[in-house]
Amino acid sequence: MFLPIIFVLSFLSSSSNAADFCVGDLYAPQGPAGYSCKKPEAVTVNDFVYSGLGATGNTSNLIKASVAPAFSAQFPGVNGLGISMARLDLAVGGVIPMHTHPGASEVIVVVQGTILAGFISSANKVYYKPLKEGEIMVFPRGLLHFQINAGKSQALAFVSFSSPSPGLQILDFALFGDDLPTDIIQETTFLDAAQIKKLKGVLGGTG
Amino acid sequence: MFLPIIFVLSFLSSSSNAADFCVGDLYAPQGPAGYSCKKPEAVTVNDFVYSGLGATGNTSNLIKASVAPAFSAQFPGVNGLGISMARLDLAVGGVIPMHTHPGASEVIVVVQGTILAGFISSANKVYYKPLKEGEIMVFPRGLLHFQINAGKSQALAFVSFSSPSPGLQILDFALFGDDLPTDIIQETTFLDAAQIKKLKGVLGGTG
Amino acid sequence: MFLPIIFVLSFLSSSSNAADFCVGDLYAPQGPAGYSCKKPEAVTVNDFVYSGLGATGNTSNLIKASVAPAFSAQFPGVNGLGISMARLDLAVGGVIPMHTHPGASEVIVVVQGTILAGFISSANKVYYKPLKEGEIMVFPRGLLHFQINAGKSQALAFVSFSSPSPGLQILDFALFGDDLPTDIIQETTFLDAAQIKKLKGVLGGTG
Amino acid sequence: MFLPIIFVLSFLSSSSNAADFCVGDLYAPQGPAGYSCKKPEAVTVNDFVYSGLGATGNTSNLIKASVAPAFSAQFPGVNGLGISMARLDLAVGGVIPMHTHPGASEVIVVVQGTILAGFISSANKVYYKPLKEGEIMVFPRGLLHFQINAGKSQALAFVSFSSPSPGLQILDFALFGDDLPTDIIQETTFLDAAQIKKLKGVLGGTG
Amino acid sequence: MFLPIIFVLSFLSSSSNAADFCVGDLYAPQGPAGYSCKKPEAVTVNDFVYSGLGATGNTSNLIKASVAPAFSAQFPGVNGLGISMARLDLAVGGVIPMHTHPGASEVIVVVQGTILAGFISSANKVYYKPLKEGEIMVFPRGLLHFQINAGKSQALAFVSFSSPSPGLQILDFALFGDDLPTDIIQETTFLDAAQIKKLKGVLGGTG
Amino acid sequence: MFLPIIFVLSFLSSSSNAADFCVGDLYAPQGPAGYSCKKPEAVTVNDFVYSGLGATGNTSNLIKASVAPAFSAQFPGVNGLGISMARLDLAVGGVIPMHTHPGASEVIVVVQGTILAGFISSANKVYYKPLKEGEIMVFPRGLLHFQINAGKSQALAFVSFSSPSPGLQILDFALFGDDLPTDIIQETTFLDAAQIKKLKGVLGGTG
Repeated sequence: MFLPIIFVLSFLSSSSNAADFCVGDLYAPQGPAGYSCKKPEAVTVNDFVYSGLGATGNTSNLIKASVAPAFSAQFPGVNGLGISMARLDLAVGGVIPMHTHPGASEVIVVVQGTILAGFISSANKVYYKPLKEGEIMVFPRGLLHFQINAGKSQALAFVSFSSPSPGLQILDFALFGDDLPTDIIQETTFLDAAQIKKLKGVLGGTG
Repeated sequence: MFLPIIFVLSFLSSSSNAADFCVGDLYAPQGPAGYSCKKPEAVTVNDFVYSGLGATGNTSNLIKASVAPAFSAQFPGVNGLGISMARLDLAVGGVIPMHTHPGASEVIVVVQGTILAGFISSANKVYYKPLKEGEIMVFPRGLLHFQINAGKSQALAFVSFSSPSPGLQILDFALFGDDLPTDIIQETTFLDAAQIKKLKGVLGGTG
Repeated sequence: MFLPIIFVLSFLSSSSNAADFCVGDLYAPQGPAGYSCKKPEAVTVNDFVYSGLGATGNTSNLIKASVAPAFSAQFPGVNGLGISMARLDLAVGGVIPMHTHPGASEVIVVVQGTILAGFISSANKVYYKPLKEGEIMVFPRGLLHFQINAGKSQALAFVSFSSPSPGLQILDFALFGDDLPTDIIQETTFLDAAQIKKLKGVLGGTG
Repeated sequence: MFLPIIFVLSFLSSSSNAADFCVGDLYAPQGPAGYSCKKPEAVTVNDFVYSGLGATGNTSNLIKASVAPAFSAQFPGVNGLGISMARLDLAVGGVIPMHTHPGASEVIVVVQGTILAGFISSANKVYYKPLKEGEIMVFPRGLLHFQINAGKSQALAFVSFSSPSPGLQILDFALFGDDLPTDIIQETTFLDAAQIKKLKGVLGGTG
Repeated sequence: MFLPIIFVLSFLSSSSNAADFCVGDLYAPQGPAGYSCKKPEAVTVNDFVYSGLGATGNTSNLIKASVAPAFSAQFPGVNGLGISMARLDLAVGGVIPMHTHPGASEVIVVVQGTILAGFISSANKVYYKPLKEGEIMVFPRGLLHFQINAGKSQALAFVSFSSPSPGLQILDFALFGDDLPTDIIQETTFLDAAQIKKLKGVLGGTG
Repeated sequence: MFLPIIFVLSFLSSSSNAADFCVGDLYAPQGPAGYSCKKPEAVTVNDFVYSGLGATGNTSNLIKASVAPAFSAQFPGVNGLGISMARLDLAVGGVIPMHTHPGASEVIVVVQGTILAGFISSANKVYYKPLKEGEIMVFPRGLLHFQINAGKSQALAFVSFSSPSPGLQILDFALFGDDLPTDIIQETTFLDAAQIKKLKGVLGGTG
């Protein structure tokens, strides 16, 4: 006698499944709103959990820092859900260089150490402050910002974004890590040619 | 002599067809914004009309009520258009149990009978009232709400949603109609184990 | 001993109240997203219920029809919630003339009678069909559409919109009910001056 | 020694590529948010540049005007980016007839000549003015508007839209250029049958 | 000689300031999109930094847990930026009870301890898993979810939301912590009256 | 006898006025979605027309170029309408330096002369090309881009944005035109201190 309710309502529920989530299928067509959805029946809890931010990143590099993203490309469970994360590790002296996320605002929470974080507004006003453990700071979408280990020990922070694929444009790589000709860089940034060539050498740029 | 205007402008118009609508192709890839679009040349008026809400639903069940959805899964014409509908039939004593639509606000219009409708806000304030024929009520997105036949005759209502796929999470089915273990339900809802097991029995839940 | 949970969590809940709804305050500043919100503590269930669609409209007019809106201006409870409604009454021979809603898609549900409804796409293709009781039809946002009583009795329908303030541009009023000069209408519509003047006379237009 | 930074950060950057753009693949599935994305590695600068607006349009037609669109169907580089353009050429006496864009606001900039431009609001108020070279005017989304060459020489304007596929519904084509029956047009527009038939004859409509 | 560039460009920049951020003014009118903006000239770095998540919450309560929000009401710097955060502290045996956020998706990152986290989909499928330090999990918008300390020590997690004011509807408070009459709860949840009254007693509900 | 239709329908139309547009009132509260709306009855055609882009800008400055914006701060008619414009004048040798618009995509149309335009993607790929008269190019939202007069005569272009307040962050002003300390710039950009100080001198920066 109870079957009717189960029939009627579970029909309803199963048909509305796609409204809940759209785990990204990285091999199917991608559109402006993100990846195509994996078939709901193939989705498991593991699609919604990501372990890639669990380990300390390798900071044996020039910036003494590392960034591990959990964007939709790494963590397809966030596809279409308007949010994503990343992990920042900064060794002593470590720096996340000046960068923007073209499509998202960011909030940082400092979990370990002290981080000097800041951003620059369109009005060319600089907002920066050292953040202690447990403090959070928001970086409005699309603006240049940076994080520097301001303490004497390793620092750890998690950052969240208002988009599953926030993008990341690191200023130095954008300018000096590709084949944008030196004279164009010079004309559009007023930097000296020698400075440009020096950084192109370091960052692998040509032209 | 008139051909030029026809040529120039109809070229324009036909190329902008996709801006108008995107009738869902239920068998093509689905993305965060909805179903892929059926080819415009295959679309007919029947894609924009749905007859599935025309008949009184079967209310011979525990809740003495039925819900017939016209979401994008049933009515692909609303895909991408930010709106959908459903039909509610409530026999005498019928109830649409406590539920949410995770992704949409809802407006109900009572067409026949009297329906006691209400929702609960994040601030734990309850808003409920009996609605007469022709009265409408809005349920803000994502909040728990319910509808009860408050009269002595069959009731009929149509509900509209601010999304083509609003989703539907019925509280009892979510808690007791799946395999969520009793101890987890107990810990997260403070309900007694006996109560949980009783409802799992009724609603087909396991665990 | 139980007070702490109440304190901690109710603090949380009450502070997030604004996330739920924003009942429009028609006398405070209005912005691109809608009206300013009424203070949450002044909101009652009556803000979410609207009775203005309950009575049959007066159809003793040229179009033998009436439209009663429940947009945010009439029903401030829908402000910010992405949805609104209206009631259509069509006497025998009644017509809702050709019109658009600049900012919203629409779904119609026929509650009584038979209504011939249709819309015209950007590709100049016409989609129209007589709708019986219980049938629904969607009109994609911004396109010209119309409804005609196609039966031999009074017809009643409710329409829902994907916006709390969908707008309404009735073609004849737009062209002939204002002070747009006849020669501009003529040049931009190819209508004859005599036709324009005749309709300006009927609809109160000048110029 | 510098390789580590290159490895870590370029991994990050390449994986976030899809956040930047989604050049439309006109032959892959299309969804409510636009075309599927062309593979990033196949994208070149030519996908972001469009030359189709470079030449004066053919104005030897009834309206003595031409419209060249650069919507996502013609210029797939704008797919997903919330913007598109078109070019308007108006010979002496040329007119862009009364029309709407169902899904976008528009800004016009007059580059050559004088153009009388205007729109009609939902409140049936007309806003129109002659625009000189360098003047701009905005037409809010979905409203009827028009442009007329108001000078004694050829006029040129560029228009931009708040959508990559704004749609275009030209009033005369919508009413008289398809197979909408004369009696339906008559009932929904109050135009005389003779007027309707005359314009159907000119614009190729049937019915 | 260099002044002109400063004049022209700084004019531009200062005028576009509002595009960057809109720090909430909690005492000015609020609209559907959030709080009114604080005057840009009064904004300092402290508006973008929040220290309220820095201290361990008081878990001496029934749920042995605490939630500290950094929504726009507590942290006005996130107003309009599409993101917010909260801190979860769970003592041994602590539980964040079953709840929803009506308007946002959530990502949790476990910073200390082990947390059993899960959510229930519209299709009544349960997705849950114990999360270790550094693991993250996403909860799609509007769905019921919960977090339980699954370890033998204090647990700490930070959660981020895809909205500056995600809302929070805790199931038990919604059902039993207000004045929703027992018979309505009974009819809409199938819970026994005794169970309802017991929990109303604990949670302070009346009716 | 015709009055009834006028009464019923004009009531409808006037009440939905706010759906059409929201001309910005620069002196009323501003929210995340833009400026408060000017009272509809005070709005005239002049609110929708802007003449500030009509004159050639003063290019007697370091960059030999000028930018005149028509954002919502200058042209309140675009408030809430998802679009805005600007005029670029580039004398021979003129350059619009490397910059981003944090919240908008941009399309440029070259009206006079030849402009070398380009942008850099998150994947550090450079897309640039000389644009001739009538050619258009799109710059996806938030990415670094630039324009250079590549010809031997004055150049003129109009740019459109997918937002009424796109923001503008000019790289050199952001880095060197404020009080961001030299050592922070050095650490986050790898530029030499001498280079930084030189440009701070030119651009008026301190610190």
